[in-house]
Amino acid sequence: MFGITPSARLRPSPFYESTVAEGVQSFTTYNNMLMPTGYGDPEGEYWRLINGVSMWDVAVERQIELHGPDAGRLAQILSPRDLGKCVEGQGKYVALCNHAGTLINDPILLKLAEDRYWLSIADSNILFWARAVASERGLDVAVSEADVSPLAVQGPKAEDVVASLFGDWVRDLKYFWFSETEIDGIPVAVARSGWSKQGGFEIYLMDGSKGAGLWDRVKEAGKPFDIGPGNPNACERIESGLLSWGGDTDDATNPYEVRLGPFVDLDVADDVVGIKALRAIKAEGPKRHQLGAVLENDEPTALPAHWYDILVDGEKVGDLTNCVWSYRLKRNIGFALVSTRVKPGAEVVVHKDGWAIPAALSKLPFI
Amino acid sequence: MFGITPSARLRPSPFYESTVAEGVQSFTTYNNMLMPTGYGDPEGEYWRLINGVSMWDVAVERQIELHGPDAGRLAQILSPRDLGKCVEGQGKYVALCNHAGTLINDPILLKLAEDRYWLSIADSNILFWARAVASERGLDVAVSEADVSPLAVQGPKAEDVVASLFGDWVRDLKYFWFSETEIDGIPVAVARSGWSKQGGFEIYLMDGSKGAGLWDRVKEAGKPFDIGPGNPNACERIESGLLSWGGDTDDATNPYEVRLGPFVDLDVADDVVGIKALRAIKAEGPKRHQLGAVLENDEPTALPAHWYDILVDGEKVGDLTNCVWSYRLKRNIGFALVSTRVKPGAEVVVHKDGWAIPAALSKLPFI
Repeated sequence: MFGITPSARLRPSPFYESTVAEGVQSFTTYNNMLMPTGYGDPEGEYWRLINGVSMWDVAVERQIELHGPDAGRLAQILSPRDLGKCVEGQGKYVALCNHAGTLINDPILLKLAEDRYWLSIADSNILFWARAVASERGLDVAVSEADVSPLAVQGPKAEDVVASLFGDWVRDLKYFWFSETEIDGIPVAVARSGWSKQGGFEIYLMDGSKGAGLWDRVKEAGKPFDIGPGNPNACERIESGLLSWGGDTDDATNPYEVRLGPFVDLDVADDVVGIKALRAIKAEGPKRHQLGAVLENDEPTALPAHWYDILVDGEKVGDLTNCVWSYRLKRNIGFALVSTRVKPGAEVVVHKDGWAIPAALSKLPFI
Repeated sequence: MFGITPSARLRPSPFYESTVAEGVQSFTTYNNMLMPTGYGDPEGEYWRLINGVSMWDVAVERQIELHGPDAGRLAQILSPRDLGKCVEGQGKYVALCNHAGTLINDPILLKLAEDRYWLSIADSNILFWARAVASERGLDVAVSEADVSPLAVQGPKAEDVVASLFGDWVRDLKYFWFSETEIDGIPVAVARSGWSKQGGFEIYLMDGSKGAGLWDRVKEAGKPFDIGPGNPNACERIESGLLSWGGDTDDATNPYEVRLGPFVDLDVADDVVGIKALRAIKAEGPKRHQLGAVLENDEPTALPAHWYDILVDGEKVGDLTNCVWSYRLKRNIGFALVSTRVKPGAEVVVHKDGWAIPAALSKLPFI
């Protein structure tokens, strides 16, 4: 692992000093911001998420705020998912596409008010994108990056931690729903959300100067539950079949190829960006689909830094877009973005670092 | 310095293996790609650039290609600089702005043909931006990220190296002009360009599978001139007054604030993005300007990872956006983005890591 050079282009998170105090060892960058990726004990951090509760600095999930009379209209124009029934306090997973129907982000959209929305984004520049579309269409809406930084609390004991901090009302929150509140003067929104399938919450800090205060309070509330620091966990998210935009997608990926078809409503209005292209893609049928791949070798491999070819009978049929040692399956597993001609059950070969590793394809998720 | 975790979201460069073989120690990320930032001898790498010749992997300067009948029209719509006289083989430094006149990138625009342009970009997503504008206006142009990766050769001996490799014709290239050619079957464009004021070239590799071949040939040609690996040099670029978009700018910075006014032509057509806002900003006068700051302390400081407050009489007047120990001036220097009420010659105080360091402001560049 190489060092990462400090730069004003790579912004620290409001929780940065707290994560350094916790012993963070490594970072990735995401939305031009540093995100912790490990505290020195990958397997321990994994099992803490699976069996207990983990807290993650995910301030990198920036909130692109749409605010003004046309905020709702812009939200719908950007989202090929019908938002007509979305109410205040509700969040929805949306597949943002460009005019060609290519997936450009997969945020959670949060409706704060009729005239105010957040897009809690993956790693691509939706600030520029949303501004371009809004300005070109002459909409009356301000698009900005809000001073909002999520802190995730994930794992089977997450609800107990968050309830002990905010009250039992959080137990009634439905998935992706949220509520604005405060704790000791720290303004937050509490959402049932998070990039794992172990259950949990994201606490959206709404004042970047108060990161340490929020971190300390969550840590204190989590002590009876043995909380510890973690990060969006590559192993768990791959086992659980969660998409990483930009990692598992390329510049030609449409929502249907990566299991996001259910989040596209083809009968939204024609002015929704990409909807005409998506109708055509759906009618023609997508060229690729996303499956799981279980590699035959039984030694842990390193996380790959790029895609690997997947072959059938010597012919390339797609790519392995990630790969991780599954602590639960005791196998190397990954996502295969392959031709729809290749079906679950297929035996393939992954070309990886000069090796040819047999693999079996399956449906996702693995667990 | 913390480690950086490998990720498929952070693409390696075609020169990645070569830089690892050269002993690269650290990286930054830029346009979701890894860029080498050092080989273990910062001062040696600096003097090699000042006195000799250095070669840099700057594949992160991605080329956003505009191709098609409306390519020239889109280039002008995106650029508040008159491109009317730009001819094939010519490059121009342009200040891309959004509809509010805020600077969103400062690329070199290269005109390859009447229907084909590259924007050699700084660290922001112009692929999405240009596609949004082109699609919303219904232009007949394909916008893509080309398979093109610059390799910089910089320093007073750079011309001799590049001439020995490609021929003496490169000595006649004017600044930012370029020519397409090849070497041993490796397709390249050779441009007189580069992010230093020490002179030099950027060799745009046009086949990502041939990075090692190009690296080896440049290294071999440079041997008589004692070439060695380097990177966009923070010390030299600050001494020379070169802007780092995203490092020295924020989400409210317009071109006039950061010395890019000469690259804005206010009489371009009204359909140029941001031009109406820029006319208003120019008429009203910018609120901030960019000066140099020489700190009074005479010990080298670490490169800051964020901005620092600049105060006059206890009142904040702006920000120190970078800071580096100048090997030539033997002082800590940086850029000050301050109120236009504060003039060159002003004595200010920089609040930095809990310290209050006196500093003197001056015009840029320092050298």
